[in-house]
Amino acid sequence: MENLLRWIDPLAIAVFAASGALEASRKRLDAVGFILIAVVTGFGGGTVRDLLLGRMPVFWLKAPDLLAVCAVVGIFVFFFAHRVESRFKALLWADAVGLALYAVIGAETALITGADPWAAVLLGTVTATFGGILRDILCNELPLILRKEIYATAAAAGAAAFVMLDKMGAGHVLALISGAIIAFTIRGLAIRQGWSLPQYRPRPALHYPDNR
Amino acid sequence: MENLLRWIDPLAIAVFAASGALEASRKRLDAVGFILIAVVTGFGGGTVRDLLLGRMPVFWLKAPDLLAVCAVVGIFVFFFAHRVESRFKALLWADAVGLALYAVIGAETALITGADPWAAVLLGTVTATFGGILRDILCNELPLILRKEIYATAAAAGAAAFVMLDKMGAGHVLALISGAIIAFTIRGLAIRQGWSLPQYRPRPALHYPDNR
Amino acid sequence: MENLLRWIDPLAIAVFAASGALEASRKRLDAVGFILIAVVTGFGGGTVRDLLLGRMPVFWLKAPDLLAVCAVVGIFVFFFAHRVESRFKALLWADAVGLALYAVIGAETALITGADPWAAVLLGTVTATFGGILRDILCNELPLILRKEIYATAAAAGAAAFVMLDKMGAGHVLALISGAIIAFTIRGLAIRQGWSLPQYRPRPALHYPDNR
Repeated sequence: MENLLRWIDPLAIAVFAASGALEASRKRLDAVGFILIAVVTGFGGGTVRDLLLGRMPVFWLKAPDLLAVCAVVGIFVFFFAHRVESRFKALLWADAVGLALYAVIGAETALITGADPWAAVLLGTVTATFGGILRDILCNELPLILRKEIYATAAAAGAAAFVMLDKMGAGHVLALISGAIIAFTIRGLAIRQGWSLPQYRPRPALHYPDNR
Repeated sequence: MENLLRWIDPLAIAVFAASGALEASRKRLDAVGFILIAVVTGFGGGTVRDLLLGRMPVFWLKAPDLLAVCAVVGIFVFFFAHRVESRFKALLWADAVGLALYAVIGAETALITGADPWAAVLLGTVTATFGGILRDILCNELPLILRKEIYATAAAAGAAAFVMLDKMGAGHVLALISGAIIAFTIRGLAIRQGWSLPQYRPRPALHYPDNR
Repeated sequence: MENLLRWIDPLAIAVFAASGALEASRKRLDAVGFILIAVVTGFGGGTVRDLLLGRMPVFWLKAPDLLAVCAVVGIFVFFFAHRVESRFKALLWADAVGLALYAVIGAETALITGADPWAAVLLGTVTATFGGILRDILCNELPLILRKEIYATAAAAGAAAFVMLDKMGAGHVLALISGAIIAFTIRGLAIRQGWSLPQYRPRPALHYPDNR
């Protein structure tokens, strides 16, 4: 079980790297561009987490193996992305897995550093969403967080579930896995079924006909 | 008077959070999206300030009450934004208040950390402008700083006034309030009167007819 | 020779500041906007480097002379940009010089802080590219990194050349200069000759006619 835990971080990095490389393929970058976007997306969430918590130098400066993971993923996607039916769909799902994993990893790291449960949920949500935000801003795409389906909510729910289960003594590993599964399930259903929370809709104003 | 000071920080966060939530309403996000944008905008300026000064972990990891402020503001705007005549106008004014407050808060924190007066003015300006920049980039909007009216100038003037008054021994509280009022007045007049500094305008070139 | 080294940092900042001010001129900002974009672009790369390495407070809080460099460059460009035949070309070349210098400066700082060679190359590349990325995002422009010519590759090659020469004992100054020249030559040829690496191109998919 502990072995499984050691793979959560590289897995989150690899799937976010894949989502970045897929975005690079949609922008028709060259191979080095693929690797750079893969690295920034893969390392982005964890970097923001480490900066906010003051854990410097950031984790990847001591982890050339993680850099290798991003580079291999970037090159793999460069050569094989055309075999995927829809690169945007693949990007969405890779992003969903990364979102779910980073939601619990971010919250866990915050708890370890001594943050309040509330702060841990927030940090998990920020960590989970910023890798993708960075990728989308770099590639000049509308951030997924602005799409109509549930996105940040899934990360927040997963992080909250992890923190609650962990505080209730459910066992660390169980809490991590449950939180990630909850986040992924919510986001996955949102993608497949087009789930969304009620959006803001301007209502007729009281004093003014044209309510911008 | 000291009591008043304790409210500057939460007030700056609340008004920036409101500006973020108003932007979220213009993008028709869901309630969690409102809260997330409110949090990022409200905490953005102070986070950049803390990162640049090396004051980690960032302030909001120890302040669940500030998180609650952002969340309450986000939800309030979600339910009541439609009663505002122009949400963009409201956003502009909330941003102006936040800009003015953060200009002096940023400069003050820099001085406390031992920065030079020049650096304090710069840090105040950066702190005041980055919350809104983050909001606008996240929401895929043209940053207010690129608009034609005076924007960064107001923050710089307020931060400079605070630093000068403080160094001249005018009293800390007076310096803070004067700086904020100066920044807000300049920005407010710029919004109302369309004030602007002379903009760059390409002039006829010496050697070349088409001067891009 | 050591004297020459002391000028690399201010030079990199000045040319990036110039590229930022040129972007500001293309957006027709006012003089304060010129200075702010010049400062953010000039300081951006080094700030990201310092944040990632945990070297806080960031370098420019102790260097009012560097701030003055950015301000002078910003005002100079404000008054003289119209004499340049193509401001976008000038921007591209200033960016190329900054990219080359920051690639080796970033890698050097990482090595000094004790990073692995691999990590130093990555940090050099990230440092070199993020100043320009910040400028382009702030100004709502497509980041240069998304253009078709070689960009990140030039920074990576320069950083790698520096790290290799330095580790092989070629002498610190020689390694720095060689790395910067290699990066600038590659990027410069890419600009002039339209050099590019093979880009990703969707190929006919196996199962699916419309391969998005």
